[in-house]
Amino acid sequence: MANQNKIEQWFESRKSRKKDLKANHLWKGVCSGDRFELSKAITLIESANHQDRVEASKLLKKCISSKKSSWRIGITGVPGVGKSTFIESFGKIILEKGLKLAVLAIDPSSSISGGSILGDKTRMDWLSNQENVFIRPTPSGLNLGGVAKHTRESILLCEAAGYDVILIETVGVGQSETLVHSMVDFFLLLMLAGAGDDLQGIKRGIMEMADALVITKADGENLTKAKLARTQYASALHLFPPKENEWIVPALVTSSIENNGLEEVWKNISNFFTKYQAEGWIQLNRSRQELLIMNQHVSELWFTKMENDKKYKVELERLTQLVISGKLNGYMAAEELVKSLIANPS
Amino acid sequence: MANQNKIEQWFESRKSRKKDLKANHLWKGVCSGDRFELSKAITLIESANHQDRVEASKLLKKCISSKKSSWRIGITGVPGVGKSTFIESFGKIILEKGLKLAVLAIDPSSSISGGSILGDKTRMDWLSNQENVFIRPTPSGLNLGGVAKHTRESILLCEAAGYDVILIETVGVGQSETLVHSMVDFFLLLMLAGAGDDLQGIKRGIMEMADALVITKADGENLTKAKLARTQYASALHLFPPKENEWIVPALVTSSIENNGLEEVWKNISNFFTKYQAEGWIQLNRSRQELLIMNQHVSELWFTKMENDKKYKVELERLTQLVISGKLNGYMAAEELVKSLIANPS
Repeated sequence: MANQNKIEQWFESRKSRKKDLKANHLWKGVCSGDRFELSKAITLIESANHQDRVEASKLLKKCISSKKSSWRIGITGVPGVGKSTFIESFGKIILEKGLKLAVLAIDPSSSISGGSILGDKTRMDWLSNQENVFIRPTPSGLNLGGVAKHTRESILLCEAAGYDVILIETVGVGQSETLVHSMVDFFLLLMLAGAGDDLQGIKRGIMEMADALVITKADGENLTKAKLARTQYASALHLFPPKENEWIVPALVTSSIENNGLEEVWKNISNFFTKYQAEGWIQLNRSRQELLIMNQHVSELWFTKMENDKKYKVELERLTQLVISGKLNGYMAAEELVKSLIANPS
Repeated sequence: MANQNKIEQWFESRKSRKKDLKANHLWKGVCSGDRFELSKAITLIESANHQDRVEASKLLKKCISSKKSSWRIGITGVPGVGKSTFIESFGKIILEKGLKLAVLAIDPSSSISGGSILGDKTRMDWLSNQENVFIRPTPSGLNLGGVAKHTRESILLCEAAGYDVILIETVGVGQSETLVHSMVDFFLLLMLAGAGDDLQGIKRGIMEMADALVITKADGENLTKAKLARTQYASALHLFPPKENEWIVPALVTSSIENNGLEEVWKNISNFFTKYQAEGWIQLNRSRQELLIMNQHVSELWFTKMENDKKYKVELERLTQLVISGKLNGYMAAEELVKSLIANPS
């Protein structure tokens, strides 16, 4: 009898899960601004289950046609720069403007995923308890490409749910900051004032991507150093070629503890969006980002299909052996592989 | 009459060109060790002409089946490090061992292409006049992928022509050093002794790729600085994870002017090849390099084919418009594109 009950409960839960994870049902929940429903929707897009993917696709189409938009802001900086403290204080400023804020992370070692090496205890405790805030850690067990797709889709869901500002946090390690840059409108680089060697440790490529440099922890004994660093960075920024949209990248100093400089950061971002929404650059840039994804994803999809194709696998294995035994080089093997695919499509 | 003669001459030259650029004819020339024939063979593989490509492919197959091999050594370093002077002096050491030397360049600004910014006059004047030396500049008008393919194929031709050592020179800018690393057995990084900031300006990635660090211009006033730099680099090298083949990367000092340290560089390289040819690592590494190329090239070939496909182009244009107008995102457009290709293969 007890077992029977359990089985019934299980069937019930399956049914309710099925209903819960239907696009139409979730869509209503997301639009109503219910954070729990938004979480469930993000869980749906994480799923690899075929039926879930179909529903996820429907849901995302609804998001796109809802035409809601947000300010998409990327935040990066080396570990120790104080990203979570900055986001906690900066988030407060955003909420004070009456805006809704979503924070997404795109890094496995992200402070908001709790994976921080230093076991950072702050982790946006205040922010995460606010009504108008939605915080979502990086999903685990995905590669960088998977994380990127997931985050882009989460942005769409958060926008449909009415979030006005979306912060996408990443750590300046590997390629994650390039990925974040490819999905945001504005890219904020947090930096520490060092002792003379300010330009070290920062890849030139990242500085070129930034739309604003923010030197953190500009308080107490650190203030003079931070101001000096700002001057140095401001000169360094002049060395870069001008941005396509002609935006002049500011170098700013902030103290999250003393609550200094954060309004100025907001003012800069706000000016950026006002100007470039009016000029159409934001839309242009987003279109280009999506077209780039389209090209990359076609290639990924095609090769996934190929990898699952029996004829292709057999031919690939045969040619791999010929390459290993030195009978063909890589170019020749590739030519044969593509030729055989065209001659014998499966 | 004069015109008639010219026309006849033109036909004759066409015929002889055709014969000249046939694989069988060139193969004999290359194997005989004739440098002029080797040059012509490399010109053939540069050609985009369809008939030439067919002959080039035949010729390369002959090279591969000839099973001749060489020591493939990459050389990189920032502009001003003295690459050409080093190669000139180091080449002399190689020739003294009774070996044949080929020098290829993989960079448009390469000193041997004559494109050096400083208008470097040395450009291996002595080396280029030696019997057992073949020097070939980077072909112009190719993208990096094209240069890579061209250089890999030139390596095969030089090996078939009996060259024992092939130096592939590149400048440490952009991605060319990664490309060179992917086609050589041994990677030599030339460095200048600076004033305290020795580790600056060198991307960590490049140092990790190196199989030997060579500090150049260790002569006169510079000698003390160079020795200090060697100590610093040697410690820095300890910070890297050990190489897969367990090779201990040496830090060396040389003076091309005073002819110092070059024998030690050769000794290190020689030890490397003796050890890893015996252990089979050289062959393993080359197989992996070729398999990597195979994968990359399949993708390139496939997308070239797609770009020339009418149906694909029409569908791509339609979906591009939908992405620009915000009706689809990049992922959705990619899925539709791949689906339509599978449903309607051309």
